[in-house]
Amino acid sequence: MTTLLAPLAVSLGDPAGVGPELLCEAWARRDAERLPPFVAVGGGEILKAAAVRRGLDIAVARVETPEEAVERFPEALPVLGDHDGAYTPGEPDRAGAERALASLSLAVGLARQGAASGVVTGPVSKARLAEVGFDLPGQTEFVASACGVDARDAVMLLAGPTLRTVPITVHNALADVPHLLTEDLIVRKGRIVASAMVRDFGIANPRLAFTGLNPHAGEGGRFGDEEIRVIEPAIATLRAEGIDASGPHPADALFTPRARATYDVALCMYHDQALVPLKTLDFDEGVNMTLGLPLVRTSPDHGTAFAIAGTGVADPGATIAAIRLAGECAARRAAS
Amino acid sequence: MTTLLAPLAVSLGDPAGVGPELLCEAWARRDAERLPPFVAVGGGEILKAAAVRRGLDIAVARVETPEEAVERFPEALPVLGDHDGAYTPGEPDRAGAERALASLSLAVGLARQGAASGVVTGPVSKARLAEVGFDLPGQTEFVASACGVDARDAVMLLAGPTLRTVPITVHNALADVPHLLTEDLIVRKGRIVASAMVRDFGIANPRLAFTGLNPHAGEGGRFGDEEIRVIEPAIATLRAEGIDASGPHPADALFTPRARATYDVALCMYHDQALVPLKTLDFDEGVNMTLGLPLVRTSPDHGTAFAIAGTGVADPGATIAAIRLAGECAARRAAS
Repeated sequence: MTTLLAPLAVSLGDPAGVGPELLCEAWARRDAERLPPFVAVGGGEILKAAAVRRGLDIAVARVETPEEAVERFPEALPVLGDHDGAYTPGEPDRAGAERALASLSLAVGLARQGAASGVVTGPVSKARLAEVGFDLPGQTEFVASACGVDARDAVMLLAGPTLRTVPITVHNALADVPHLLTEDLIVRKGRIVASAMVRDFGIANPRLAFTGLNPHAGEGGRFGDEEIRVIEPAIATLRAEGIDASGPHPADALFTPRARATYDVALCMYHDQALVPLKTLDFDEGVNMTLGLPLVRTSPDHGTAFAIAGTGVADPGATIAAIRLAGECAARRAAS
Repeated sequence: MTTLLAPLAVSLGDPAGVGPELLCEAWARRDAERLPPFVAVGGGEILKAAAVRRGLDIAVARVETPEEAVERFPEALPVLGDHDGAYTPGEPDRAGAERALASLSLAVGLARQGAASGVVTGPVSKARLAEVGFDLPGQTEFVASACGVDARDAVMLLAGPTLRTVPITVHNALADVPHLLTEDLIVRKGRIVASAMVRDFGIANPRLAFTGLNPHAGEGGRFGDEEIRVIEPAIATLRAEGIDASGPHPADALFTPRARATYDVALCMYHDQALVPLKTLDFDEGVNMTLGLPLVRTSPDHGTAFAIAGTGVADPGATIAAIRLAGECAARRAAS
């Protein structure tokens, strides 16, 4: 990581959640964790209060530009913006939701302009954001929309130290999954994942392993035929395009240590099939990355954790991992 | 484990699979693994050939009674029955399927009569068994039927060193799961699991954690309402009966190390939700146990593995764990 690259823009998330304190903690560990320069986007008072509550003796420096943030980064946590104000950890309110949205919006804008090399988004409360007029399912859709990308082409990747998974369908009732899964959807997402493994992860010939939808991947049609009707044709299409796609594999056999060594990313048919193994293995270091965007976007794969905000026990592993991964991907894009 | 207890009866599974060789390996490690006495049921020639192929220099002794098996166990792998014959590893045939069925049937019969303290079943090929007239979905249903227990009350438990899970629905297409899940089914299985945790596992006040069906356990009805309509009422019924039942929990948050410490068994809504975390964590030592039966029945949680049968690489961990767990549960039942 060279300082020639623009800094990462990091949004604070809901001030009453664990986002601000974990950002302070990440900055405090910047050298030990070899983190790339980043700039917090939002308000300095929020961060100072979070640092004090967490018992961190750190400097917070208001900056005017991303360049200044890179300069100040070694000695102080740089902050852009003044969406600021008092808050109480664990007690989200309307003003906090407005600040979270302003922070997200500004951070994405910086990356869109090229003034930031990527975006790391802090955890928000979707219910609170909805109260201030945010009508999207989540931050992923917000970032996609800001980039002019169809939400279907903004692909969620979960990345941990031992596993990468992609849910092909995400926030849908399980009863809806079988009819939402189409050959086109699987092929589209497969292509985006394959490209991202090359561009963002530097894997020249990525190996994509697809799960089946049903137990034992349907066991030849005994327990459902989506494998035969939908998933196998999608995999065949991807293979015909030169993508190293395999499956459909029985999901319960795909996450053993031996199986994990055979692919670079597992593409799963629904939310829990992708999230359960990832969080089982890599809970404290799980990163949620959005593939298919013109900018790099990552996020720690946990929520606001209002229940423990301000108590100092929240684990910074996922925030640190999200910043590190965004920096690595941004550097690869800049070098290519 | 005292030798006053009858031995466990262990069926060979399909001779062309890894069952016979893993049974020989388990016997060879009986002292190091502190295994209770068991008797192989089937044919001695099958076991001798499997031992030779695996490079094990062990004695195989034909016995006439379970009592004799216990006496001979320290010095030789005891075998009851003469369902025997030559076979080729990795090449299942009709005769092998017939022998597998005879072995299973005899082993269950011994336990039904009390001549064996429990049954450990080796891996079979369901497709091959179907060719010889076996018309049940699997060995679990065979054992339940032999015991006169409704298959719905024979509950599959997956047990590993770090986790126990139960799939409430098992071998069903995912599209069928939402309408198969009923309050009655969840309550019935919950009661059986709670009783088994007391009787077989010696846990005085077992903690049962239930997953939701949908992502984030439905997030208050946003992604499906089965949690509200079906799962929550079932948990309330169990709690009213004095069972420590919790949930529905988001499945992706239930298998982290911290979460696993909060319950004794996780009850999941469908196959992969239960099997993915278990095999991710405990692949080589996963045991499939059938709860709700008048006899103890366990099985290594893997298949025939025809592809590696006879090559000596199959891991005996699950077979050893299945024998050990059956012995522990049989001893608890005998002592109660």
